[in-house]
Amino acid sequence: MAETPVRFGILGCANIARKVSRAITLAPNATICAIGSRSTEKASRFASDNGFPASAKAYGSYEAVLDDPEVEAVYVPLPTSLHVRWAVMAAERRKHVLLEKPVALSVKELDVILEACESNGVQFMDATMWMHHPRTADMKAFLSDPYRFGQLKAVHSIFAYYGGPDFQKNDIRVNPALDALGALGDTGWYCIRAILWAADYELPNTVTALPDPELNEAGVILSCGSSLSWGDGKVATFYCSFLTNLTMDITALGSNGNLRVHDFVIPFRENVGPFYAAANSRFSELSIACEPIPSEHTVMTDLPQEALMVREFATLVRKINANGFKPEKKWPTLSRKTQVVLDAVKASIDSGFEPVKVVY
Amino acid sequence: MAETPVRFGILGCANIARKVSRAITLAPNATICAIGSRSTEKASRFASDNGFPASAKAYGSYEAVLDDPEVEAVYVPLPTSLHVRWAVMAAERRKHVLLEKPVALSVKELDVILEACESNGVQFMDATMWMHHPRTADMKAFLSDPYRFGQLKAVHSIFAYYGGPDFQKNDIRVNPALDALGALGDTGWYCIRAILWAADYELPNTVTALPDPELNEAGVILSCGSSLSWGDGKVATFYCSFLTNLTMDITALGSNGNLRVHDFVIPFRENVGPFYAAANSRFSELSIACEPIPSEHTVMTDLPQEALMVREFATLVRKINANGFKPEKKWPTLSRKTQVVLDAVKASIDSGFEPVKVVY
Repeated sequence: MAETPVRFGILGCANIARKVSRAITLAPNATICAIGSRSTEKASRFASDNGFPASAKAYGSYEAVLDDPEVEAVYVPLPTSLHVRWAVMAAERRKHVLLEKPVALSVKELDVILEACESNGVQFMDATMWMHHPRTADMKAFLSDPYRFGQLKAVHSIFAYYGGPDFQKNDIRVNPALDALGALGDTGWYCIRAILWAADYELPNTVTALPDPELNEAGVILSCGSSLSWGDGKVATFYCSFLTNLTMDITALGSNGNLRVHDFVIPFRENVGPFYAAANSRFSELSIACEPIPSEHTVMTDLPQEALMVREFATLVRKINANGFKPEKKWPTLSRKTQVVLDAVKASIDSGFEPVKVVY
Repeated sequence: MAETPVRFGILGCANIARKVSRAITLAPNATICAIGSRSTEKASRFASDNGFPASAKAYGSYEAVLDDPEVEAVYVPLPTSLHVRWAVMAAERRKHVLLEKPVALSVKELDVILEACESNGVQFMDATMWMHHPRTADMKAFLSDPYRFGQLKAVHSIFAYYGGPDFQKNDIRVNPALDALGALGDTGWYCIRAILWAADYELPNTVTALPDPELNEAGVILSCGSSLSWGDGKVATFYCSFLTNLTMDITALGSNGNLRVHDFVIPFRENVGPFYAAANSRFSELSIACEPIPSEHTVMTDLPQEALMVREFATLVRKINANGFKPEKKWPTLSRKTQVVLDAVKASIDSGFEPVKVVY
């Protein structure tokens, strides 16, 4: 018997909300119930522009969405500085929270959100979409193969895109009052998550930011990087930026194999995710060639990764609301680990690139 | 009118000498004239095993090769700790020097070699083969394109291969008396060269080694990495290792484009070098896809890169010996820049990962 779709409310008309609205519509177990903006007119226009169901309500405030008893879960794409306020308020009104990344400006803030979700029994998940692509599980299976990949030794991750001069000055993502973490929060979040994912979410001991991050006039990070070390010979580096051409790479090196993916954040094409793997690669006789050549693996998906994310979140919500389950702790834990490392990178930058111990 | 091929002597029967002997044979302007080993028998066997011309002489010492007036140039594949002695002796006997990398254990040593070459008017070149693949020039053309690539912002380079437990203990490349720089000298050399190549050989201001290099029982580096910074927002990182599956990557990020190559040190296949380039990549409407997908470029070569290296070296030698040209300074300069950065990485490791200023 099909269960009732989870009814979502959306807080704000951010550009990314267009993509996630579509995902809610595509997910078989979710539906859009309401949207709130600072004006009813704007909310209505967003609803009609994005093909919301006729039943969806348009409100002139975020509170109104939270006050609507039909709304079971909220998607929060507001600027990061507003996350604590609205995520906590949502949790207090027993709305499950799907929160855009970076989830908070600091672990301290995130803990306020997570505490509110836990004490109110609502599910928390951050909107890191690539986690839900079936490719991600296939890549993980490769990394977990002791023969083909072996022991993880090194990871490098990049997420960068080119914002342009106006973006670098004026975009929300570089506004110190709205998204003070800049490129570290917006793109570094994915790099850190990718590294933790490759390391089975084992936190590094130490984080050391790379020298020479670039800042805009307001002091917000436009590009930066870091090394991470675990003390067992495993190391990672990442680079995140608003100043270079779109690049979304994970390169993972194991004792026996390696893995590369070049579009891990958003696949180049919506219905297929490629990755490249090699195992037991060798120089040929005389070292004039090498084999095997890394092989391409393609993973098809009927639903885009963001719809799979919504489906997973809605599944958890339905289990809680209909069957009395407890919220799944995996998702808030991953968010917190990511934020802990992100905070350490920021602290290392602020300390002049000193090593910073990672404390969970 | 075809010029006389340059007559090469080879010092020692190292495994890599088999590959370079073949390259000398393949190069249209070079020929093998002599080989020296610690025993005449070993030298003779090497010559016959590797198809040397019947005229090639087999000597029971390295000196004998240097004393042979027919030998115009020597290829020196000896362990790094022997480079100063034999490269200097070769130069003093007016033999041009093609020297395996790492060229020396330190810049101080290298300067002794370069001084000997300069004062004796002989050509110096290190045996970094990939520099001579036509792909390298094609990739450089892409990096130099202001519209397709733009300003270089970040480079990451990896050269790693899996040595296995016996290698990690007993190979020449991890013997403190023979190749004390370990993986940094053997594989890091290529990473550093790749980064400098991408940066048009502009030296970084500062080098900071990554934490947690791995060492063998004798204290020789088995894996390490570093960041490099130029103080203008341009950064680079590299990772080199004997402990992971064969990986040979350059990833270069520009403001407008990016470039990736996965077999830069030794192409997977001898006659073709692929690389991957993207320019002005964008998220699509709704950010549900990205375009363009990086395009593959393949560069064919009739001669393998090591034969092209020999050809280039022999061309310079013939110009000097037949036409009275001066040695080409480009090659010793590139070697010295690479060694300067390598020394700085080593100094940073030895200092506990402090930033080290790069002084040429």
